[in-house]
Amino acid sequence: MRTRDYEAGVNGRESLRIPFRTVNVRGLELLINPDRFRRSMEEMARVGATKGGGVNRLTLTDADKQARDLFAAWVSDAGLELQIDEMGNMFARRAGREDEAPPSMAGSHLDSVPNGGRFDGSLGVLAALEVVRTLNDKNVSTRRPIEIVNWTNEEGPRFPPSMLGSGVFAGAIALDTAYEMKDANGARFLDELERIGYRGDAPCAPRPIGSYLELHIEQGPALVSEGVQVGVVEGIFGLTWLRVTMRGERDHAGPTPMHMRRDALVGAARTIAAIREIPGKLHPEFVATVGEFSLSPNAINVIPDDVTFSVDFRHNDPELLTEARRLIEEAARREAERENLEVEIQDVGGSTPTAFDESVAQVIRNVSEEAGYSHRPMWSAAGHDARYAADLGPTAMIFVPCVAGKSHSEEEDMDWEDACRGCDVLARALWKMADS
Amino acid sequence: MRTRDYEAGVNGRESLRIPFRTVNVRGLELLINPDRFRRSMEEMARVGATKGGGVNRLTLTDADKQARDLFAAWVSDAGLELQIDEMGNMFARRAGREDEAPPSMAGSHLDSVPNGGRFDGSLGVLAALEVVRTLNDKNVSTRRPIEIVNWTNEEGPRFPPSMLGSGVFAGAIALDTAYEMKDANGARFLDELERIGYRGDAPCAPRPIGSYLELHIEQGPALVSEGVQVGVVEGIFGLTWLRVTMRGERDHAGPTPMHMRRDALVGAARTIAAIREIPGKLHPEFVATVGEFSLSPNAINVIPDDVTFSVDFRHNDPELLTEARRLIEEAARREAERENLEVEIQDVGGSTPTAFDESVAQVIRNVSEEAGYSHRPMWSAAGHDARYAADLGPTAMIFVPCVAGKSHSEEEDMDWEDACRGCDVLARALWKMADS
Repeated sequence: MRTRDYEAGVNGRESLRIPFRTVNVRGLELLINPDRFRRSMEEMARVGATKGGGVNRLTLTDADKQARDLFAAWVSDAGLELQIDEMGNMFARRAGREDEAPPSMAGSHLDSVPNGGRFDGSLGVLAALEVVRTLNDKNVSTRRPIEIVNWTNEEGPRFPPSMLGSGVFAGAIALDTAYEMKDANGARFLDELERIGYRGDAPCAPRPIGSYLELHIEQGPALVSEGVQVGVVEGIFGLTWLRVTMRGERDHAGPTPMHMRRDALVGAARTIAAIREIPGKLHPEFVATVGEFSLSPNAINVIPDDVTFSVDFRHNDPELLTEARRLIEEAARREAERENLEVEIQDVGGSTPTAFDESVAQVIRNVSEEAGYSHRPMWSAAGHDARYAADLGPTAMIFVPCVAGKSHSEEEDMDWEDACRGCDVLARALWKMADS
Repeated sequence: MRTRDYEAGVNGRESLRIPFRTVNVRGLELLINPDRFRRSMEEMARVGATKGGGVNRLTLTDADKQARDLFAAWVSDAGLELQIDEMGNMFARRAGREDEAPPSMAGSHLDSVPNGGRFDGSLGVLAALEVVRTLNDKNVSTRRPIEIVNWTNEEGPRFPPSMLGSGVFAGAIALDTAYEMKDANGARFLDELERIGYRGDAPCAPRPIGSYLELHIEQGPALVSEGVQVGVVEGIFGLTWLRVTMRGERDHAGPTPMHMRRDALVGAARTIAAIREIPGKLHPEFVATVGEFSLSPNAINVIPDDVTFSVDFRHNDPELLTEARRLIEEAARREAERENLEVEIQDVGGSTPTAFDESVAQVIRNVSEEAGYSHRPMWSAAGHDARYAADLGPTAMIFVPCVAGKSHSEEEDMDWEDACRGCDVLARALWKMADS
């Protein structure tokens, strides 16, 4: 699937070729202004733009600062009050008729993974901005105040774990813990936050939320492969991360007979092959992945004595997560014993399944019906800030299709029509929530 | 198994703890002088000594130069004429009664792998030196001249392939090819050879050899586990090195359903598990090893799209090597197809099996019998310079047990009694060959 290039040429600057997929959106009856939305998306996509059509906006880097500055300028233009908290989370507030009522929030994140896509995160932040601009255009007031959020460090590759800003906001991660985190070069989170000028005064602590909505690309192939336009996201899968280490004996690949070997790579390979079979025993939507792998000494003629690999497994049923863990540990111990290896299994992260608010999901279903968009219920297998927001108030997410289900790479792409449809669903749902 | 430390204290220098295993050798009736042999082994073990009791003498480094200088001083003390060829191979010559007869050679190498052991290579060079010293002591002349050889770059990790010096000497590798090789930092073989002052004048080209004998630690567990004192090495296994690359599709570990994945790591793991089963179908001494492994992107929550691994397999039957290759390729293609991956299999090295000379092996058997040492025939599954020497004259090797079969690591060790027994067998056999 190829994208057609689009000559951006915004604000009289020299045009930069931003390969948004050009789609005629005139057939859609949208609340929002698709051209304005698109111009904002395109301008943001230039911040940290990569040659391959993606963006490189690791959290708290100069590119992240530039994205934040651009967003801040826009919210100021839209007449919103910008509040920045101690974690650098940005809240752009539009007053409500009952301004003391807990706000209706919508947002996502402007940071990216290395060489990530230009819709992942930005779509949710800039769609929320477009909704507020639309309400301004129409001179519409809402009962509750509306807050557009840009969460700090949703992605996490520079400062793991991911969803750090929303995690502190929800009280799940201590502020000091976040501040003391160091990146691979030893740079401290707090120093980097101050360096880019986004350590705010507002406390980063739990406060009531009237509702939280997050529009995001699906990052998977379900919607696009089924031709469904809107995913009504009812929750986020629970996730377990394990690190499995197997240790055998380093020996010369020539003179060591097969029956005397303690080959850590053979034990690991058999375990990985076994892990591949586990999801099928549990549920069609259960997923398990080995993504990280290292071995020692990694020499062509030496039997490896030390192998470490990760396991990532996800589902929304806590019992199946427990059962999967048992099966994975059983496989690792069985294969370690077979090859006479030592095995160690460590927990390196995880989260329990998070069910969203059924009434918010129902609003998304209703407005999708009203606008004539096909939709289906789904759970997110990827983490999102909505997971932490759900601790503070009624929350749900809106997914829209992305090309081939790809994300976290420069290949990430989507039809512009799908982006506008998502923004339109967000507009209708946020308006309803803010008036509820 | 622990070694007892031995206070070296040679030449009045501050003693350095060299952990040779202390064994009483007075029960052995040796031709050679075990104390002198031991002192030389200990002094050589100090060159490039590592804290863990091994040596770091990568080829053409300062440590290699220092080892060569020490060896050169010793051969000069022993009254031998030292000839250095264009590859830095060192030949220390003791005249024969018929000095024009092709020489009886014995030797090995003084270079090491990174953090290698102190017997691998040194044993064969210094045992040959001890044999010549013994002949000098006894005022014994031989019909043929004797040459002690230190081959350049037997190990190969700095300048692959291994056995480079003997390979050029045998005419199997072009001198210019060897000269132009570069190490990982871009240093050229020829420049490094000149830098350490060991680019000699003698042509490095095939010349007739009366016989070639090489004493070496087994580097495997056969002798030590069977309690046999001497291995009569009748040949060297053929070796094939493959590089297998599997390519799938990079996807997010969460939202990509198991049935839509093209997981390169799963394909590779299943292939490695299958390769483990192949030797058992072929022959009890067939070996196959996956030692190198890399994957991309190597992130805990991303499905790997690119995996490369090596395969090393060895045996002395060319038909079984061909059959193994077929089975390995079949396994890789089957598993690639099952996971919908692209697969590429490259040849990255190899050698055919080399059978040594039966009459030389018979001499080793005879002198072992004569001295009352238990012995068994065997093939070497590791490469040795003897492989190339065999192209130029009657050749065989003598193996002695090493602790736990370990080599290519600081853990490499051997009983001093086994070292002396090996040196004694070499003395008896070399004397016989030089008088034949």
